[in-house]
Amino acid sequence: MDDIWLIWFLIGAAFVFFMQAGFAMLEAGLTRAKNTANILMKNLMDFCLGTVGFLLLGAGLLLGEDTLFGLIGIPNFDWITNFTDPEVCSKFFFNLVFCATAATIVSGAVAERTKFSAYCIYSFVISLVVYPIEAHWVWGEGGWLLSMGFQDFAGSAAIHMAGGVTALIGAIFLGPRLGKYTRGKDGKVKVNAIPGHSLAFAALGAFILWFGWYGFNGAAATNASSLAAIFVNTTVAPAVAACATMFYTWIKNGKPDVSMTLNGALAGLVAVTAGCAVVPAWAAVIIGLVAGVLVVVVVEVLDQKLHIDDPVGAVGVHFANGLWGTIAVGLFADPELIEISGQSLASGGLFLTGNFTQLGIQLLGIVCILAWMVATMSLTFFLIKKFNGLRCSREEEIEGLDKTEHGMPPAYADFLTVSVNNEILAADEPEGTGVEVIDMTSPVPLKTASKTAKMTKVVIVTRQSQLETLKSALETIGISGMTVTQVLGCGVQKGKPEYYRGVKMEMSLLPKVKVEVVVSKVPVEQVIDTARKALYTGHIGDGKIFVYDIEDVVKIRTGARGYDALQDEEDPVKTI
Amino acid sequence: MDDIWLIWFLIGAAFVFFMQAGFAMLEAGLTRAKNTANILMKNLMDFCLGTVGFLLLGAGLLLGEDTLFGLIGIPNFDWITNFTDPEVCSKFFFNLVFCATAATIVSGAVAERTKFSAYCIYSFVISLVVYPIEAHWVWGEGGWLLSMGFQDFAGSAAIHMAGGVTALIGAIFLGPRLGKYTRGKDGKVKVNAIPGHSLAFAALGAFILWFGWYGFNGAAATNASSLAAIFVNTTVAPAVAACATMFYTWIKNGKPDVSMTLNGALAGLVAVTAGCAVVPAWAAVIIGLVAGVLVVVVVEVLDQKLHIDDPVGAVGVHFANGLWGTIAVGLFADPELIEISGQSLASGGLFLTGNFTQLGIQLLGIVCILAWMVATMSLTFFLIKKFNGLRCSREEEIEGLDKTEHGMPPAYADFLTVSVNNEILAADEPEGTGVEVIDMTSPVPLKTASKTAKMTKVVIVTRQSQLETLKSALETIGISGMTVTQVLGCGVQKGKPEYYRGVKMEMSLLPKVKVEVVVSKVPVEQVIDTARKALYTGHIGDGKIFVYDIEDVVKIRTGARGYDALQDEEDPVKTI
Amino acid sequence: MDDIWLIWFLIGAAFVFFMQAGFAMLEAGLTRAKNTANILMKNLMDFCLGTVGFLLLGAGLLLGEDTLFGLIGIPNFDWITNFTDPEVCSKFFFNLVFCATAATIVSGAVAERTKFSAYCIYSFVISLVVYPIEAHWVWGEGGWLLSMGFQDFAGSAAIHMAGGVTALIGAIFLGPRLGKYTRGKDGKVKVNAIPGHSLAFAALGAFILWFGWYGFNGAAATNASSLAAIFVNTTVAPAVAACATMFYTWIKNGKPDVSMTLNGALAGLVAVTAGCAVVPAWAAVIIGLVAGVLVVVVVEVLDQKLHIDDPVGAVGVHFANGLWGTIAVGLFADPELIEISGQSLASGGLFLTGNFTQLGIQLLGIVCILAWMVATMSLTFFLIKKFNGLRCSREEEIEGLDKTEHGMPPAYADFLTVSVNNEILAADEPEGTGVEVIDMTSPVPLKTASKTAKMTKVVIVTRQSQLETLKSALETIGISGMTVTQVLGCGVQKGKPEYYRGVKMEMSLLPKVKVEVVVSKVPVEQVIDTARKALYTGHIGDGKIFVYDIEDVVKIRTGARGYDALQDEEDPVKTI
Repeated sequence: MDDIWLIWFLIGAAFVFFMQAGFAMLEAGLTRAKNTANILMKNLMDFCLGTVGFLLLGAGLLLGEDTLFGLIGIPNFDWITNFTDPEVCSKFFFNLVFCATAATIVSGAVAERTKFSAYCIYSFVISLVVYPIEAHWVWGEGGWLLSMGFQDFAGSAAIHMAGGVTALIGAIFLGPRLGKYTRGKDGKVKVNAIPGHSLAFAALGAFILWFGWYGFNGAAATNASSLAAIFVNTTVAPAVAACATMFYTWIKNGKPDVSMTLNGALAGLVAVTAGCAVVPAWAAVIIGLVAGVLVVVVVEVLDQKLHIDDPVGAVGVHFANGLWGTIAVGLFADPELIEISGQSLASGGLFLTGNFTQLGIQLLGIVCILAWMVATMSLTFFLIKKFNGLRCSREEEIEGLDKTEHGMPPAYADFLTVSVNNEILAADEPEGTGVEVIDMTSPVPLKTASKTAKMTKVVIVTRQSQLETLKSALETIGISGMTVTQVLGCGVQKGKPEYYRGVKMEMSLLPKVKVEVVVSKVPVEQVIDTARKALYTGHIGDGKIFVYDIEDVVKIRTGARGYDALQDEEDPVKTI
Repeated sequence: MDDIWLIWFLIGAAFVFFMQAGFAMLEAGLTRAKNTANILMKNLMDFCLGTVGFLLLGAGLLLGEDTLFGLIGIPNFDWITNFTDPEVCSKFFFNLVFCATAATIVSGAVAERTKFSAYCIYSFVISLVVYPIEAHWVWGEGGWLLSMGFQDFAGSAAIHMAGGVTALIGAIFLGPRLGKYTRGKDGKVKVNAIPGHSLAFAALGAFILWFGWYGFNGAAATNASSLAAIFVNTTVAPAVAACATMFYTWIKNGKPDVSMTLNGALAGLVAVTAGCAVVPAWAAVIIGLVAGVLVVVVVEVLDQKLHIDDPVGAVGVHFANGLWGTIAVGLFADPELIEISGQSLASGGLFLTGNFTQLGIQLLGIVCILAWMVATMSLTFFLIKKFNGLRCSREEEIEGLDKTEHGMPPAYADFLTVSVNNEILAADEPEGTGVEVIDMTSPVPLKTASKTAKMTKVVIVTRQSQLETLKSALETIGISGMTVTQVLGCGVQKGKPEYYRGVKMEMSLLPKVKVEVVVSKVPVEQVIDTARKALYTGHIGDGKIFVYDIEDVVKIRTGARGYDALQDEEDPVKTI
Repeated sequence: MDDIWLIWFLIGAAFVFFMQAGFAMLEAGLTRAKNTANILMKNLMDFCLGTVGFLLLGAGLLLGEDTLFGLIGIPNFDWITNFTDPEVCSKFFFNLVFCATAATIVSGAVAERTKFSAYCIYSFVISLVVYPIEAHWVWGEGGWLLSMGFQDFAGSAAIHMAGGVTALIGAIFLGPRLGKYTRGKDGKVKVNAIPGHSLAFAALGAFILWFGWYGFNGAAATNASSLAAIFVNTTVAPAVAACATMFYTWIKNGKPDVSMTLNGALAGLVAVTAGCAVVPAWAAVIIGLVAGVLVVVVVEVLDQKLHIDDPVGAVGVHFANGLWGTIAVGLFADPELIEISGQSLASGGLFLTGNFTQLGIQLLGIVCILAWMVATMSLTFFLIKKFNGLRCSREEEIEGLDKTEHGMPPAYADFLTVSVNNEILAADEPEGTGVEVIDMTSPVPLKTASKTAKMTKVVIVTRQSQLETLKSALETIGISGMTVTQVLGCGVQKGKPEYYRGVKMEMSLLPKVKVEVVVSKVPVEQVIDTARKALYTGHIGDGKIFVYDIEDVVKIRTGARGYDALQDEEDPVKTI
């Protein structure tokens, strides 16, 4: 390779490395604050453990001398033995960062509920064996798909579809996050939204990914025409896709959806990845248009019909659009561009040449790669589940993986976070509203309220995770409304110590909930008794109950006072 | 173009693309949390819609064969018909990312109050027609300013001044954000600060922009001397400018201003953009020095004298310093560097050659570009205002555009945000203090307090947006102090549904305010009555009022108790 | 220099510039929200002031013609006089961004307590004189260490160790942050964790740094073999180091430590920096393995044994691993790679050639660079301390440097932050738990509680900084438990005005604490009296005290009521 193109090859690969930051930000932003450190750590470690796996075996399987008729490369230690050969060395780096991309796609789909150890094993295995073998088919010298003329320039199939289908398998194996899908009283499954904690990080991640994608798609270009064409396609497709997503959600839901539009841009990038060197820009427009709508449809079908929980939309972006992009090569590949790019396809695309050959080969490649990924990754997840465990416990998931998996203070230690544990809320109250606010059940009408019946405020301070238990218990005695405030408690955390940078944390800010209910008819003693039974665990931190007198309550909208103020008969759901 | 320089041209253009992330972070950081998703979406979509506009017409107007004596290029579809020509293709990409930069500059100045649809139309129009035409003058083959020897290497005038003046026009058309400027009792306009929600994002944005600027200024270099000189100038000017801003604000206000210093660095970058290839480094020092002070002066004059509301300082950074940088070429252009860079200027700079020619041409270019931008963009904003509407409603602005324009949960769903709606506060209480804290109006002195007069705490939980209405109403009955706490309510959002990633949000965390007042002399009934009248809308969510007994109150500083504790006679403004 | 390599040299240097963003994010993320703007500003200004220092003198000392037998370069103004020479000009830029890296390493270690003016002086001095001289030894033409064959390709010693030891000196001169180390009742020093405010920013910073490091290590490469090898080493070492850190902390503390693993990756990068061009990849594995463990050991020894407070781990990452990486060259330098890279070492590494020469020279270089840095920087800090002051006042540190040094609103103005001022808490209550929650001291058992003894809730709203004073005072009268809530007050900030972007802030959101205690035995009057004495300062803002009646209290775990509910006899520390 010429020095010029080798330098660009390495710079482009460094851009691809930077995409790790993009994935980390995107995934952190679209998940909850309590799992932030965990998802960042997973994104970091899939690269680092993946590097180790790739060093040990993966690089050889992918780049080694072909054997078994194009199925695998012969393992080698070229990164040791041929370290001074610039081509060997730079291809090693280049393929390593691509491998890490395939691995990291999965982290978002399995976020917020996967055991950290399970994720470490998964990412090691995919980099050690699974990805290198199918990538050898597509890109390895002598790889059987490559030999047939299968075209996947930068990896719509080999990386995005492969990573995306693994994400799908992982999400199915794991099941949804607590509270994502709940069964209503009518027996129907209700789909609940679990908003991510920082759209700013998500958007930053998307911008970084797009920037890095110029390296992802462009690094392997070997001449100026090809590179320039790739840059244009890598711009046009995501831009059009984002527009398509925006208008599609705008028309469908009445408003342009921001986080979905971020996914839309990424979908366009994924879809143009296979053909970026061989399709003309007008085809990139079409590829982007389809991608922008496709990603929304897949995300929604997956979530709302199939009830598969993919917090960041990895399946819609990478699997569906990786697949679409791979097919698109068979439709739009332009003979002139094929020649310029130096790629060896079996034929031009269907729409440009009327020839079905390339489309057929693309479909064959898709089927084979999918079969390989489904078989190997299902086995991997099955074995991890069996021997290591795949999913965190219910308690860990509620508490948040940052604390339970890494024993650390909150990722945003200086901020008050709002974790209403919607897992529990939604799960136990399918018809409900999450936490209901300020609503009481005392039977006394206005003027005589303070005379005929004592109204009492009972304040309960306890663990956040006990909220729903408490709520259910209180409902059994006829108390259906309450005010919930997040408070911070500070106490010694007994049991397993936490560490921050090697320092044992003796003090930790514990988020607590303060639940206020006002009762009149229900005896105070009964409330105290019920709450205590519900909250008792015998451990320090069960909390305390305070009792205050209250004189009156007025409902602003209706003007009702006392008992009447507490009746929300016209709302099936209690609100302020 | 040589392969080497074409690769660099494309890498540099990718750096420019990355500046979109910088703008997004900077602008998000300097505006409020409730508009975060909206501003990010605007930054994303001005690129994506701009790309479509540029594809359809803009590229041809800018890069097409010149016609009308250098006024416009003939529209073409080179990106389709000449896709395999690396120069055509890479120039298309290069000019597209520059076009998007011009468009995105505006978003910050019109942030937090512009309708999303209006912004979409604006960004489409500027990329479709307005920017390409003036850029053709400056850079298009045969462009009339280029032919005259006008020098704007990377776009101080064509991009930053053009974008900056559009920002100014937009900000004037829109008017200030609610509460930015209020009229005091003395009839004078009071300028209120509306702090951005994340200085960390703002700083990240500034760093990304600076990094990207090496591509912005350097991409078009065609030889080593020129490129190295550009990199040094692109470093020296912003570094000196940031120092200038820091010391200037330090001396002027007594402390070094952080967000203004970020603007200072950007001002230096903008100012050196026109001349980066033709001015020596010592001139870059002077350009930076002036830029760093100029940006502060313009930001302050605009805000404090002209009362034009530009939340992120886009006018000061891009308009003022784009103008300054364009003039600076006429002062500092060095004949030796002109020759090396291969640029064709009419003459060297005034200070190096004593020749006024270039300065004159620079001024002519400035005037013509400004005239074009003012005419076309005023018309654009006028038509948008007339046929689509430019500005959000008062309610939408108070509520936040994330919710009203995108129907989404808060961008930081897991955090407690503090939105005191200073729009309303400031607007209605020009002499005031925002929310006053813990102050009461009961007339009983200490010892006898609990005997002679009952003291009562009235707690009102209601919508955040009703806070000021409530406050005013309470003031009319003599209650001037209160404690305000942000609480979270949870309830069904009726009416237009919200969506998060296609899932209808049935539950949403609603920020509420809890207002506590303690009364003694004022009858409790009157307080309840007044509050109810003020807060009644007839919609679910009006809130509730609770009444408690209180035994005593002590003012720590004075030792006063009961009634006396509640008198803040010596403070014109009530404080704790 | 060939055009190709010059372009890469400049791109690589731009990557190094981008590392400034990485440092800023990493350091901001690992410190507290109240100092965010300050640390960002320090990171920006060490680059900008450093540039000025480097322009004025540093560049000449580093790059000028050698004099004094390799000790210094002769000051010059090449950046003015030889501006059109691409090599001079690009070397100026390249060395400037490296100089800024050395300077910025220190900011993290001295964060959260250094006066801004002191930091400005420090960063100017290090860039003006101190760094350029030692860098001349290592890289300057004719530098004495270079001449001897000392090998520090990209600056493990000259930049990271030099910056790291300066960080160490600075941290020692400053002393620890308030509350970091406290003396327990047993007389032993207790180490307290002070968590950073955003792990997401910290992780983003680490990813940006790693990305930038491809430029940092690679920019100076001059042939393809060398560059490819450098990229692989720059990937392998940090990946292995991160794995090492993760497993080491996992085994040691039971859980994988996230923020330490980020440090681990950076440690691997630092360690491979000296030898990246001359050690084989298998050696990079070993270098990374050692680095990943070393960083943890050093961070922990520094913190837990030596009680030197380095908030971000700069000493462990840069000093320790810079030193390790410099030694590693003497162990692993490969003669073949030395030849390819064109570096002139005295010999190959000990483990590859059995020759001790290079190791000896590396050690000599280390000793001399350390001696120089210790001498000059100690003097610098001493003089700054003497004539300007080095450290903020206790009050400023508690209040946060954003407010006191920059007079600005909170960096995250829209969020509720939790600043429990652990400086004070930890300092005064070494055996303690920070704020204790909900615990009372009334002597009445359950059933008769409301009959035999009145229970009273006393609510005190006051300044956050007064919390511990109040707490101590209340303890003297037998009240050891309380509930603490963060509330927001709003009032005019008297005294020195604050500015946001040049606008005087009249209103500011003031964080206050609300302390609730419930008393029965202790007379209410005594509580009020004690609290007032403790909180009285005579300034507006001392706060108010409210008195309420309470009917009962129940401790959930034990079932105790009234007095008994308030006894935490079995806990030495009071908890809920």
